[in-house]
This record gives sequence, C-alpha cells and structure tokens, in this order.
Amino acid sequence: MSMLENIKSPRDLKALPEGRLDELAADIRQFLVQAVARTGGHLGPNLGVVELTIALHRVFDSPADRILWDTGHQSYVHKLLTGRQDFSKLRSKGGLSGYPCRAESEHDVIENSHASTVLAWADGLAKANQVKGSDDHVVAVIGDGALTGGMAWEALNNIAAAKDRPLIIVVNDNERSYAPTIGGLANHLTTLRTTDGYERFLSWGKNVLQQTPVIGQPLYESLHGAKKGFKDSFAPQGMFEDLGLKYVGPIDGHDTAAVESALRRAKRFHGPVLVHCLTEKGRGYPAAEQDEADRFHTVGAINPLTGRPITPAGGPSWTSVFGKEMVRIGAERPDVIAITAAMLQPVGLEAFAKAYPHRVFDVGIAEQHAATSAAGLATGGLHPVVAIYATFLNRAFDQVLMDVALHKCGVTFVLDRAGVTGVDGASHNGMWDMSILQVVPGLRIAAPRDADQLRAQLREALDVDDAPTVIRFPKETVGDPLPAVGRVGGMDVLHEPGDGEDRDVLLVAVGALGATCLSVAELLAGRGIGVTVVDPRWVKPVDDALPELAARHRMVAVVEDNGRAGGVGSAVAQALRDAGVDVPLRDFGIPQQFLAHAKRAEVLADIGLTPAEIAGRIGAALTRLGGAPGTPRTVAVGERADTAGDRPRAAVPHHAHKEQVSDDIV
Amino acid sequence: MSMLENIKSPRDLKALPEGRLDELAADIRQFLVQAVARTGGHLGPNLGVVELTIALHRVFDSPADRILWDTGHQSYVHKLLTGRQDFSKLRSKGGLSGYPCRAESEHDVIENSHASTVLAWADGLAKANQVKGSDDHVVAVIGDGALTGGMAWEALNNIAAAKDRPLIIVVNDNERSYAPTIGGLANHLTTLRTTDGYERFLSWGKNVLQQTPVIGQPLYESLHGAKKGFKDSFAPQGMFEDLGLKYVGPIDGHDTAAVESALRRAKRFHGPVLVHCLTEKGRGYPAAEQDEADRFHTVGAINPLTGRPITPAGGPSWTSVFGKEMVRIGAERPDVIAITAAMLQPVGLEAFAKAYPHRVFDVGIAEQHAATSAAGLATGGLHPVVAIYATFLNRAFDQVLMDVALHKCGVTFVLDRAGVTGVDGASHNGMWDMSILQVVPGLRIAAPRDADQLRAQLREALDVDDAPTVIRFPKETVGDPLPAVGRVGGMDVLHEPGDGEDRDVLLVAVGALGATCLSVAELLAGRGIGVTVVDPRWVKPVDDALPELAARHRMVAVVEDNGRAGGVGSAVAQALRDAGVDVPLRDFGIPQQFLAHAKRAEVLADIGLTPAEIAGRIGAALTRLGGAPGTPRTVAVGERADTAGDRPRAAVPHHAHKEQVSDDIV
Repeated sequence: MSMLENIKSPRDLKALPEGRLDELAADIRQFLVQAVARTGGHLGPNLGVVELTIALHRVFDSPADRILWDTGHQSYVHKLLTGRQDFSKLRSKGGLSGYPCRAESEHDVIENSHASTVLAWADGLAKANQVKGSDDHVVAVIGDGALTGGMAWEALNNIAAAKDRPLIIVVNDNERSYAPTIGGLANHLTTLRTTDGYERFLSWGKNVLQQTPVIGQPLYESLHGAKKGFKDSFAPQGMFEDLGLKYVGPIDGHDTAAVESALRRAKRFHGPVLVHCLTEKGRGYPAAEQDEADRFHTVGAINPLTGRPITPAGGPSWTSVFGKEMVRIGAERPDVIAITAAMLQPVGLEAFAKAYPHRVFDVGIAEQHAATSAAGLATGGLHPVVAIYATFLNRAFDQVLMDVALHKCGVTFVLDRAGVTGVDGASHNGMWDMSILQVVPGLRIAAPRDADQLRAQLREALDVDDAPTVIRFPKETVGDPLPAVGRVGGMDVLHEPGDGEDRDVLLVAVGALGATCLSVAELLAGRGIGVTVVDPRWVKPVDDALPELAARHRMVAVVEDNGRAGGVGSAVAQALRDAGVDVPLRDFGIPQQFLAHAKRAEVLADIGLTPAEIAGRIGAALTRLGGAPGTPRTVAVGERADTAGDRPRAAVPHHAHKEQVSDDIV
Repeated sequence: MSMLENIKSPRDLKALPEGRLDELAADIRQFLVQAVARTGGHLGPNLGVVELTIALHRVFDSPADRILWDTGHQSYVHKLLTGRQDFSKLRSKGGLSGYPCRAESEHDVIENSHASTVLAWADGLAKANQVKGSDDHVVAVIGDGALTGGMAWEALNNIAAAKDRPLIIVVNDNERSYAPTIGGLANHLTTLRTTDGYERFLSWGKNVLQQTPVIGQPLYESLHGAKKGFKDSFAPQGMFEDLGLKYVGPIDGHDTAAVESALRRAKRFHGPVLVHCLTEKGRGYPAAEQDEADRFHTVGAINPLTGRPITPAGGPSWTSVFGKEMVRIGAERPDVIAITAAMLQPVGLEAFAKAYPHRVFDVGIAEQHAATSAAGLATGGLHPVVAIYATFLNRAFDQVLMDVALHKCGVTFVLDRAGVTGVDGASHNGMWDMSILQVVPGLRIAAPRDADQLRAQLREALDVDDAPTVIRFPKETVGDPLPAVGRVGGMDVLHEPGDGEDRDVLLVAVGALGATCLSVAELLAGRGIGVTVVDPRWVKPVDDALPELAARHRMVAVVEDNGRAGGVGSAVAQALRDAGVDVPLRDFGIPQQFLAHAKRAEVLADIGLTPAEIAGRIGAALTRLGGAPGTPRTVAVGERADTAGDRPRAAVPHHAHKEQVSDDIV
C-alpha cells in the first residue's frame, strides 16, 4: 500500500513527519504519471506542484482556509490530498472533473478554467473575511503566465491597497504559461530568479542538516528563518513591493520544508504577501522534463514509460489545416501578421512563427490586448489574424465591439475549439461566440464545414479590410470534404430534394454540423420528405438570399453547434420576420446551460444534436403542419425594416396545438 | 482676436515662440470654460491637459506621429489645436463629438470612450511601424485612473518586452479617475510624486531664468536637461523600470517647457519610455479646482462664473432612487455590500458609502475585478451589489458568465445608463446588456418601469442567493408611477382593452419604455384596436405565463430599449416557439448599429422608438393579418423543449405578402 492511499484528508497529511514527505511526493508523481497516462489529462502542470500542494495543505486548514487555484488544471495533487484518489474516469462522463469542482469537494472553490481569475476571487473572499471579522486565511496560487492577464493586475492593485487585509499569493513560477512566459513581467521575474543561487545554498544546507535527524528539523527551520531575514534585505524585490505587497522569495518550490517555512511566515504576516516559488513543469517525469515544446501540458492516453501517444491522431485537425494555410498566405501577403495569447502551438501558429518570426506576436494570456492591439495593427495598415480558443474570446468581447468593430478595423479572429469541446467541462465549451458576436455591428462570422471551406473562408476574411471577421471551427479532426451541388446567393447548397421529392424542409447547416445535416436529410428522405440542405458559409449577416429560399419550403430548420439563445437560429428567425417571409422555423443548438464534462460525442448525444434526434423532431413538426407535403410556394419578399421587422401572415390560426414529438419517427 | 483663433493646425502651434505659450494656454482655458458652460461636456479633464496637449503637438508631427488619448473625453484641447474650434454644437446632433472621432479629423484615432485601451492601441500601432520599417512615433496619453484597468497592465507587459520598439507613454497623473484613484498603483505613484519638490525647484529656476528673456530659454533647457540626468539617478523609479520601461518624471504637467523637454528626450530614446506628468483636474477654473467631489468632470450647461447648473435637475433620477434604497437596505441587511468601479458618485453609492464605509469597495476602473471579486464575496457569504454603467459591463462579460453564473453566486449587478444615452455617442449607449446576458445560464434580468418597481425589484434581486441578478435602468429622470391594473404570472398588466375592444395586441413593455407603450395603446385604441400592455418585470427568463397570455391575442409586440439582435424580442419569440404557441410577433428595439451622438429623445425618434411609429407599424401589421379583429382564442401550450422548440401551426400560409407600413395610420 502506497503512502498516498493513507492520506484521506489534509488532517492525515499534517500528521506525517516531515522526513517522509519526499517519499509521499514520489508516490504522488508515480500515481499521476500512471493515472494520466491511462485517461489523458493535464500532466506537466500537476507534476510541477506536488511539493507546493503538500506544503499548502500542511500549513493551512482547508476548507476553513481557502486554497484557490488559478486555471484549475493544476489541482490534481490537491484532489489526491482531499479524498479523491479514483482517477479512473478523470474527465470522463461521471468521473472526476479535470478542474476543481464544488460538487466534488468542499475543498474546491473555483471551477472556471479561464486564467488569471484567482486573485480577484481571493480578494473577494478576503474582503468577506474582513467584513465578517473572520480570521480564516485565503491563499491564491497563480502561475507566472497567468500574471500576464489583466485581471491579475486589477486584483494586485486592490490587494496591495489594503495593508490590514491578510491574503497570501503564491506565484508558481515555472517560466511558462503554455509557451514560455513573455513580456516585461517575465523579465522582472527572471531578475528575481537570479538570486536563487542563495536558495540552492539553503537547500544544500538543509540536506546536510537533515543527516542529523533528531535535531535536524528545528535547527534547519530556525537557520532557514534567520537567513531568510538576511536575504530579504538583499534580494531585489522590485515591483511587487512597490505596489505594497510583502515579497518572500524566491523559494525552491520542490523543497517542501522551504515552501512550508515561507508559507508559515506569510501566514503570520497579517497583510497581503506574495510568496514566489520556483517550480519545474513536468518535474520528475523525464519525458516531460526533456520536452522543450511543453507537449505534456495536456496529454491524451500515453505510454507511461515513453510518453508517446498510444493512439496516433486520426486525420488532420481543423487547427492544422488553418496553420498550414496561414504559412501559404504569409508568403503571399506581407501585410498579414498573427497574434496568439500565449498559445502559439495549440492554435496552430508554430509553422507561421518559424517562417515569419517578425510577423507573429505572443501577447501573453491577454485576450483583451490581443484584440485591441490588433485594432492598432490594422489601423497601422496590416491585417492581423488573432487565433484563440472560442471560449476565451469572451474575455475580449468589449474590445472586439468597441475597438475593432467601432473603428471598422480589418481584423480576423480565428476561433478554435468552437462548439462543444467536452472533456474540459463547462468553461471550455465554445458555445457563446455565435450569440454574443451577433450584436457587433459590421462583424462577419464564417463557420466552415470542411477543410476546403476553412481555407477559402480564411482568404475571404483576409480580403475584408473594413470590418472584423470571425472564422470558427471545432476541436475535432476535420471530416471528409462536403462538396456543394449548387449556389444560392453566397450560400452553398449541399443537398437538394431528389426526383419526386418536394421542397419540404430547408435545413440551414451551420459549419461543422454540415455532415450531421446531410444525415438528417437522408433519414428524412427515407420517409419521403424532401430536404434542401444549405450551408450559409457566412452566418452573420444572414445571407440576403436566405428569406426567398426559405419561402420556397414548408419549414426551415437551423442546426448550430452554439448556444440556442441569440444564436444563428434566432438571427435567421429575425431576418425572415424582417424580410416579411413567413415560414415556420425550428432552431436546434446547445441548450443554454453549463455542460458537465464528457466526450464531445456524448455531450452532443445528450443534448439531442444527433441526426436521428433532429430528423425525428423535424418529421414530427412536419406531420403537425399537415397540408399537402411539398407544394412549392412563392412568397413575396418584403423590404428589411431597420428598427422592427414586420412579417406578413396570410391567416392567423385560431387554434394551435402542441406538436407530438416522438423519437421513433425515423 | 484671441491667439487660439490663429492656430489652424499643429503647424501654427510649432511656429509660436515658447514665451507666448502661457498666453495661449490661458486663451484655451477661457474658451473651454465659456464653450462647455453653454453646451455641457467634460470640463475638468480638459482644463487639466492644456499645457500637455500644447507640448505634444509641438514635439510630435501628428497625424504621421500618432497622438492617442485614453478615455477620449480629454481631447477637447487636441480638437482646438487641430482645426476644430466650433464648439457651439458640442455633443449635439451634427456637432462635434465629445470624444475623438475619425470622421472629424485625421488627427483622431481612438473613438472608444471605455478606459484603459490606449496602451494596447499604441502597442499595435508601434508594432505596425516596426513591421513596416517606419520611423513615425506613437504617443499614448493615459490617466493614473485608467492605469488601474487590466488592459493597461497587459499592454505595459507587452510594451516593456520590446526594448527596440519606440513607444512613448505619457501618464497624466491627476490622482483621480472619477473618484481619487485607489489601490497599490496609486500608492506607488504617490511615492514617485514625493520627489516633486525637486520638480518645483526646477520650475522656480525656470521662472527666474526666464526673467532674462534673450538667453533664458536655451539656458533653462540645458540646465533642465543636466539636472534631469542628476535627478534620474536619485528619484525612485520603481515598478515601471522593473518592467523594463525607461521612466522620466515626475514632470510638472502645467509647465509647457518642462513637458516639451521631457517629451523630446523620450522621443530620442528609441525604446519604450514612460513620462510621468503631474496635472490638476479643473486647473485654472476656481469653481472646479475647489470642488472635492469632482462635479466638474462632466457638466451640463452651467453659469461660467459660478459653475452652478443653469437648469436645476427635474424629478429624481433613476440613480438617486437606487442610491436611497441602498441606504435603507444597508440598515436592514448587514450582508449587503456595494462595489463600484471608480464611480462611487455617478452610480449613486455616495450615501451608502457614508453610512456603511466598511461595506463599500471601490476597485478602480476594473470591471473584471468588480465581477469576480463579487463572486468571491458571495462565496464568502455576503451579497454584493455591483453598480456600473451598462456599457461597461461588456468588460466583465466573461467574469459574469464564468465566475458569477457558473458558480451560482448571488451577485446583483445594477446597470445604470442602460439603453440609449445619447450625447456621449456610440460607446456609451447601453444597448448590449439585454442581448449578451441572455446567454448566461441562470442569470435573471429585471428592467423596472418606474421608481417603485426599481425599489421592489432591487429587493427581489437581493433575495436571490444562488444566481446573478441584473437590474437595468436608463439615464433619464425617472417618470411618473405606472400602476399595475392586474397580474399574470410574475408580470404586471398595465393596461387592458376597454369595454367593446378586443384582445388584438399583447404589447410587452420592457422597463422604462412602459410609458411609451401605454401611449401606443392609447393611439391604437383610437383606431378601435384593443391592446393589453404587460410589463414582464423580469425579462430573463421569459415568464412562464407569457406564452399563454400571448395565445389569447392576435399578435405580440415587444418594445425594448436595447439592440434588436438577440434581445428580449428574440428571447420572447424563442420562448413562444418552444412553448408551442403560434402568434405573430414583432420586435421593436435599437437597430444593431453604432449610433452617433445626439440627445436621447432625438436618437429614439431617429430609430423609430416613439409611440406614433410603433403604433403605426403595429396597426399596419394588424391590417395585413386581417380576419375578424379581436376574436379571443385559446391555444394549447406545449411543453418546453430543451434543445429545439417545436411550434405548431394550424395551417401553413401558401402565400405571404409584404405588409404595407404607412406612417399615417395613426
């Protein structure tokens, strides 16, 4: 039985003699490598915080004291030490979340996996303690990468202002976010790190002293404390103390005793204090330690010995299609530059950066800056491509609206991981973009259905120089090409009713759900229902030709991989009303809920975004609509109204009835 | 003729001898006080930057060099020096914008009036210069208050990282944003300011030297330069230099020669440099200088001699109703705390702060931090009220979604200046909130129609402890009470069809447009059209009783002071579809465009949100619908569908026709 198995709670951890902590750390590392190799997950970050997490739970009393994790993918060790050691279904449906999760444990607080939030949470909790007169502690762990986010600054400014409000910030400095951390702050942290020779000396001293086990610990502790006092007067403390934060560090984050000592001093300080810990991502796992590209930040299932993926990737990813096209475009257009928010490799810009090193800018975990500096670059005559995950664009909503769109800047946002992403849970799903971006005047949104369309629409976007453009695509491997069989306005027709079939349904297939919609058409054809499948390509604005095409069908259905509220379905419905076209409409999308982690396909099935479910509901709707199926009709298309849409009705139904939806229709 | 009138462009300014600049500054101040007293506008900030603006346009060559203003309300002097001296219609329809405006001048770049953006713009423009190999300069002017915003930090981190990319940051430090600037940064700036005795010495020296006019200027200049070198070695330079920025300062921002000298040195530096200027808001206008409460930040028309408002305010404002109710609530509920983002007075929290000084937190211009620290406070057992302008909530969209809503935190957001605000132009209109917030799971939105409702709904919101709540109201004076004549579900019925009138139209009146909707009902009654006016009170989620009520009418109209895309109208339409209720719907709101500045009433008229226009369109729609007016009908209300709404149709119209909308119907 491993030591780890005996740790059922932080109480058990506190009872351990300090001399056995290295053994526990080794146990935890072995567990992490074996467990994550089976399920996939965030490996590198968690290997880096083993000793730090042990020390935190020995010094503080969670859950009364709040231990908060920024970008919670570094919380696996915390989970192991707070009663959660069944990692067999990590990030799978019904298993442990890959992030802190309040439903799992009273020790978890922040579930949001967007970076740089922890200091604001901590400030709020510390203020609550102050208002309530509580002596409980608040400890926030934040990486050096996350410190580059604007939220961290706003919080530091607030935390430092209150000299009498205790709050402990632990900077987990591993010199990288995903990519190596960049910017002025990183340079400053490097200056602070240059003093760590002193810390290594302390570490050596500790080892020597611990050879004398009985007296070793207290002697080391007092010596350590004394020398720290000496050191604090000489180390450059810089900007954090300028702001008014007590600075302690740098500390060797893999020396549990050193970290404990620093945390105990911080705990006694009764004011805002920053503890600077140096750690190594992937620590103790040779495959990760030796990997410069940080491929062990997140892994799929791997061979634990070699670190190699067990299942090689399938076809090319959407990301790689984008990345390769960017290299080609870069050769043709010297005005095209790329911006990443600390995720050069995950968004597919590595090759572009290699080919055109002076035309790529990593701005740190700083989506706001990505968007507004792009507005500046566009105003300066270039065409920036801002490549980020769809969910992270939420951070830059105001900047997309008020800087890029208001100033009519030609900036292209490439939103990767759009729609349901699945295993990373609620805050990674990219289900918001096609709703909130609907409100941005002038902005255009493309949702490519296949690799050819992604390449083509990227180029179309780069030709727009007076408005923001957005290309969004999902996480999955890109599917087979879906050729167009016709064109109406700017839209591709993917499928038309067969001979003898009527124009019953116009199916508006948004982006990567094109294949799903073709399956829907096939299922409905089996029931004699004629379907036109159209890919609008640009989903905002709604294509001028859509209302007239809609008017030639008995009903319209819109299928999108996006939240239903205010999404493409709503936009199409409004466009039809405004154009005076009256055809029944159904909108299929993601229910407006936070979705628990599970595989993308599982989530899509759970929420009914499958061919069978969609076809079943459309079939039921058509049955309810009654009348002679497939009668082609012509509808006068009215003018668009600016402020309110008027839609005509030939007749007002006096009685409406609920449609019976049954799942066995198809 | 004043000196100012002879300055047609920055070229004329450069030709002036330095000895005449104080005279010019005095001219400009006189102009500003007289002009803004007539029209209203931002007075205090512009009086503070007279010498700074003169110096900027003498040292740099706009528009080739880019002079950028953060929160552009400090750009009046810049306008005066770049050919715009007709302030007679400032902020009025057809007149000068109160902010920089690209359509007005090639010297203007940033129109966005949200704070803290300028450094990101500057970084983008400097990067464009680098990529293009241009030697043009980029100068960003930012207030100490705006530096507290996260965007400023993200930008500083990027700017400081590139030692070879020239960019000049001018910190216009007047020790306040709206309220005095708070936080660790402000404390640091204070430390830097403690050296300004030295600067005053230099200023004294300059005055002495200038008594010898012929040799005065060059002697002063060289002496000044030499002493600066000396001073740079002794002044605390702190965090900016830690980040890697060259720091110059502090400079007396009202000493044109000193500012020019500092800017010329910064211009020669060929890297990122920060010039720290000390200025005084309201400088030279006694009424403003002596006003601690900063009431001269923005003014209406005033008596230029006394500074007193010419027209006393009408009835109580929405803001004051909120502020007074908060004081009462504070006495009853010790768990209620308030958060402001540097705008304690404008959002009505002054009295609360006076009554409960330990329960109000000013977080700086930091909406992200306001939202997420509120999530922390709620998790700590308190109920925070975050009071901000509606348009500024856009900055915190991600935090409302991923911190507050995902964690089911009971936080109440009070959105002032919602809907059309008018004179401040495109980026101040609060026309986005009811659209983007529709996507936030669990969040509830109230739009009170009168003062009583504001008070009542605020209390209802504070009783919700497991989800975010939003109360939104406009800028205008609150109108007369609009009593309910009935209740359906959670909705107030404000008007019912009279005797002999049918249930023709269900008019859903959102918030402050209640009075407009009652006028619409009156106009339609004159035509024999029976209207039910209902105030949903909580517009998100759509009230469960709405579909059934809708089904008893011939058509539904939704009227909202919010962008049409994805707003309340769209949400109601989707709710009706999902409930299986099929009644024609019209949605009236703000067109999805950036609106130019004009009075609120003028904008509402321009976009058709007037009783006559709305009644005309509804009347036309009803005429088109035909059938026997007013036949009451019953409609089966179906179950809500999670992923797709099915709405029934009794019959599919084979031919639809465009409705004729004529304005002379009512």
